Amino acid sequence: MPRYRITIEYDGTPFIGWQRQAEGVSIQGALETAIRKFSGEAPGVRGAGRTDAGVHALGQVAHFDLEKTWEPGRIRDAMNFHLRPNPIGVVAAAQVDDAFDARFSAVKRYYEYRLLTRRAPPILQRHRVWWTMQNLDAAAMHAAAQELVGKHDFTTFRAAQCQAKSPVKTLDVFDVSREGEEIVCRVSARSFLHHQVRSMVGSLKLVGEGKWSRADLASALAAANREACGPVAPAAGLYLVGVDYE
Amino acid sequence: MPRYRITIEYDGTPFIGWQRQAEGVSIQGALETAIRKFSGEAPGVRGAGRTDAGVHALGQVAHFDLEKTWEPGRIRDAMNFHLRPNPIGVVAAAQVDDAFDARFSAVKRYYEYRLLTRRAPPILQRHRVWWTMQNLDAAAMHAAAQELVGKHDFTTFRAAQCQAKSPVKTLDVFDVSREGEEIVCRVSARSFLHHQVRSMVGSLKLVGEGKWSRADLASALAAANREACGPVAPAAGLYLVGVDYE
Repeated sequence: MPRYRITIEYDGTPFIGWQRQAEGVSIQGALETAIRKFSGEAPGVRGAGRTDAGVHALGQVAHFDLEKTWEPGRIRDAMNFHLRPNPIGVVAAAQVDDAFDARFSAVKRYYEYRLLTRRAPPILQRHRVWWTMQNLDAAAMHAAAQELVGKHDFTTFRAAQCQAKSPVKTLDVFDVSREGEEIVCRVSARSFLHHQVRSMVGSLKLVGEGKWSRADLASALAAANREACGPVAPAAGLYLVGVDYE
Repeated sequence: MPRYRITIEYDGTPFIGWQRQAEGVSIQGALETAIRKFSGEAPGVRGAGRTDAGVHALGQVAHFDLEKTWEPGRIRDAMNFHLRPNPIGVVAAAQVDDAFDARFSAVKRYYEYRLLTRRAPPILQRHRVWWTMQNLDAAAMHAAAQELVGKHDFTTFRAAQCQAKSPVKTLDVFDVSREGEEIVCRVSARSFLHHQVRSMVGSLKLVGEGKWSRADLASALAAANREACGPVAPAAGLYLVGVDYE
């Protein structure tokens, strides 16, 4: 039974998140509907990252199996046709080995978080950034973020409902830089805990505002206590940028 | 009577264009309503560029007069408050000399036009680009665009309804470059004819597709005949990026 891998872009704003649920439109559900419409088959779709409501993706990866063999370009085009008018696009499709699993074969996940710092609200970036009227010190945020890089117990930055077996993760990169009116955070790791990126960004914003020092961030991490976390950053600024496989 | 200059960002998608008309919501009208709400005064607002329906702005400039003197930061914030939920933001406000006129004092206008070239439709760039599934030769487009730079009779690239006295304009810059999946055209001139940028981009796209040569573009310009123009590019890919004053 051929297996297909798809790379997906979406605007998370109108969705209840990646995962199918009893109520509302999920990205997973919209993809499964589009597959059913073009192929007549109803496989489950598994994604690399189960993004929350409002979180965007530029390079989410998913896989599914079909009885029939299709030219991957036809899958891409047919899914794009049937996905309309949902803001979901299949950027690429490929046939892959049975051993490929979009979730479990992933060796690295890349996320980006964007903050807009100016007096005027986001306009062309509406629903795409976390807006703060206050300026933020990107250099201080970048320096403090290095405390989070490496292997740590990330309990402080983990949602109560997180289902991961262990709170210990290895964060490979956490870069913060200013791009015009925006502050862009780029993070990567093999895997993340639920709300980990938004929790880390929310705490780092306190550093950018001068309310927390780098040492305060290190203490929050060391506390391994959810109550030490700053306010969780909103979903709208977060993007799943890409996923690496071996 | 104090005069104020504002710099404005907008998403042109839901508007009938810059200019107030009998029906529909215009950007000019929305700005005038916001001014009335915070100040109780009802001045006319004049913009540097009268953008069409669907055209965006990152740095449109406008001016208006009020009886009362306000701290410019308060004008910016009050207008942003009253502009909601319209996707229009006042990025900056300043008090200016009586001689300043957003339209007539402008010495250079900068526009950007974005095309998305890929099989999948625009998702996070929906309503923000001209989508073409075919790849375009950005280098050929850039080379051909140089035929348009300089002082020319731009009748070929001028809408029938254009009200400019003369079709002769001087184009300072027309750069075309690839940025990932996008082709970005950057143009600047003291002023433009109605639909000039979109007409030039529509013709240049034919060059990018290999349907027109650089010589064909030069001939179309030399014809000084609207019928020699390629299909006019859609509004959604166009941005008024900024305006220079002396």
